[in-house]
Amino acid sequence: MLPYMRDIYGNASGVHLFSREAMSAIDRSRRDIASLLNCFQSEIFFTSGGTESDNWAIRGVAQSLRHKGNHIITTQFEHPAVLAVCKYLSTVGYDVTYIGVSNEGYVSVDDIEKAIRPETILVSVMYANNEIGTIQPIRQIADVCHKNNVLFHTDAVQAIGSENIDVRELDVDLLSASAHKFYGPKGVGFLYVKQGTPLGNYLFGGMQESGKRAGTLNSPGIVGMVEALKLCRDEQKESGERIKDLCDKFIGKMLRALPICQINGGNNRLKGTINLCFTGVKNEALLTLLDMNGIAASGGSACSAGSLEPSHVLLAIGKTPEEARSSIRFSFGKYNTAEEIDYAAQVIIDAVCRLSPDSDLIKYSSSEGDRI
Amino acid sequence: MLPYMRDIYGNASGVHLFSREAMSAIDRSRRDIASLLNCFQSEIFFTSGGTESDNWAIRGVAQSLRHKGNHIITTQFEHPAVLAVCKYLSTVGYDVTYIGVSNEGYVSVDDIEKAIRPETILVSVMYANNEIGTIQPIRQIADVCHKNNVLFHTDAVQAIGSENIDVRELDVDLLSASAHKFYGPKGVGFLYVKQGTPLGNYLFGGMQESGKRAGTLNSPGIVGMVEALKLCRDEQKESGERIKDLCDKFIGKMLRALPICQINGGNNRLKGTINLCFTGVKNEALLTLLDMNGIAASGGSACSAGSLEPSHVLLAIGKTPEEARSSIRFSFGKYNTAEEIDYAAQVIIDAVCRLSPDSDLIKYSSSEGDRI
Repeated sequence: MLPYMRDIYGNASGVHLFSREAMSAIDRSRRDIASLLNCFQSEIFFTSGGTESDNWAIRGVAQSLRHKGNHIITTQFEHPAVLAVCKYLSTVGYDVTYIGVSNEGYVSVDDIEKAIRPETILVSVMYANNEIGTIQPIRQIADVCHKNNVLFHTDAVQAIGSENIDVRELDVDLLSASAHKFYGPKGVGFLYVKQGTPLGNYLFGGMQESGKRAGTLNSPGIVGMVEALKLCRDEQKESGERIKDLCDKFIGKMLRALPICQINGGNNRLKGTINLCFTGVKNEALLTLLDMNGIAASGGSACSAGSLEPSHVLLAIGKTPEEARSSIRFSFGKYNTAEEIDYAAQVIIDAVCRLSPDSDLIKYSSSEGDRI
Repeated sequence: MLPYMRDIYGNASGVHLFSREAMSAIDRSRRDIASLLNCFQSEIFFTSGGTESDNWAIRGVAQSLRHKGNHIITTQFEHPAVLAVCKYLSTVGYDVTYIGVSNEGYVSVDDIEKAIRPETILVSVMYANNEIGTIQPIRQIADVCHKNNVLFHTDAVQAIGSENIDVRELDVDLLSASAHKFYGPKGVGFLYVKQGTPLGNYLFGGMQESGKRAGTLNSPGIVGMVEALKLCRDEQKESGERIKDLCDKFIGKMLRALPICQINGGNNRLKGTINLCFTGVKNEALLTLLDMNGIAASGGSACSAGSLEPSHVLLAIGKTPEEARSSIRFSFGKYNTAEEIDYAAQVIIDAVCRLSPDSDLIKYSSSEGDRI
């Protein structure tokens, strides 16, 4: 990114050399990302991040297809960037159905099909849940949508860094992504929009992004995002397996050492995302102890942080508010080491034992702790 | 910005150490920018740039005050980010008045007052025009708006790097800015919103920016933007005078050497922005010659680049389409040197002489060229 901040700093939309250099980097980035996703360059629209991509996809289709209908289908456990825009749309004349999900954290294709009505214009289901990592049957949902002449959007923000996404194979109409979720820069993302998909313009002004998303292009951000995605894809097989091993090792340690520990959601998950419930232990207190020991985890998504409500994702998969408030999301990345996992596991086990009202657990831990 | 890309890469909205470090940098940036603008921290909302700030200000007020009225007043020579969103609003039930401007490029406060009706909810006038640099009577317009109980937004994107803006003194309700216009990074900007101003939310999702603009905060971009603005303010007096001298010197050379050259717009201008008409010379051909010699200039704004229409700004100040198509915007910055100005002037004079249908001018140039 640095050359595009320091030297090639022209506004890509200008008409001179400084601009052409910036625009040619953006063109190259667009070609590369289109090739990674197996789509046309003209189907990629650069945005300021995942929230904008989700908002645009849903509002843009809602606006464009208002004459056709006002019904949108999504699920109860989407990211706030989808849920909040749906909630907003329901205040301005749209009708939104929030499909429930199974206790394992999967959306049923049948449930989606049953919810489709003649006035349905859009279905939005996330590729993989950001809190529990469960991967959804995206291609099957796309098939059901298209059979019923309904557009399909997927929020792939959490998934795109670890899954090998091919938009043609998935047959989605719109797909959202955010760079910082795959080691790219903050403040940049993209929206894939299948050719011919009716989508209202998002930012009004200049003619950037085919006139659909005005504003000076963030050339360093775009270049950085695409490089990050290329690196992810290059390393995906190797680092994916390593991350999965680390995550499995971590889960094994937790389940063996802590009888009160359970996995939230099913096993068809993203490689580096796991959500654990420590029954009877308040996650706020646990997170504080972890933080004091240099371990960064969260009770839900950062976008929900500060909320006092229990995770809507965990409630959606049938957990009680108490269970949700005893749960933590752990994320593993390509820079994590086996030593870090051992250390984190030990800290968590000790912290859970300290905080647990279950005194048997404490005994268990003090006698068995060394084994871990 | 680099530490916030390399080391302090936490999502500012998280609950752990990595997040707190990022959030504390953002808090510091918000405090600094509020202090520079003389406002409260809670009045600064970070955005993805000037287009988003303008769009949000206008759509946000339009949406919030729809019950009060549907009339918006702006001017004929605003930036496309204002004009295009007004045009969009006029397709969904709003009524927009586009006030004309004087031949010198100034908005009349009287014209604004005369256009205000009981159903007027917002006036939007740019602080300084981005193509011709003329500075508008912002404080007087604010007074007229407030006397009539109407909100006032100013697009200060072009101005903020060179003018010492104090939002309390200006008494504006909303003010837009973009970092890359004052040597900051692309993809980030801000919107000042006076406390109590009714403004609809822009991006829906997480609780960032008081829940009004969701999305992971672009910490490197925000830190970089505020550092750039601080530097601008620190250097403003010195570099402002230097830029003005360079610009004056350039204009003097142009006017002396080229009888066909005229300044577009009046003299109360931003220090580094000048728009010149070279009668009878097509600006496209001239820009090509300049570009071949390493000089970056434009026929209008980058956001209008690619448009075949003559500049709407120049038409608004009474120029003919031919005059507009013979005009070029030159911008001077703090990194320009006197030698560069001499070089640019000579290249432009030679190019104009080559392209001008006026053969006297060619004679004049070949005999007098050395003087310059």
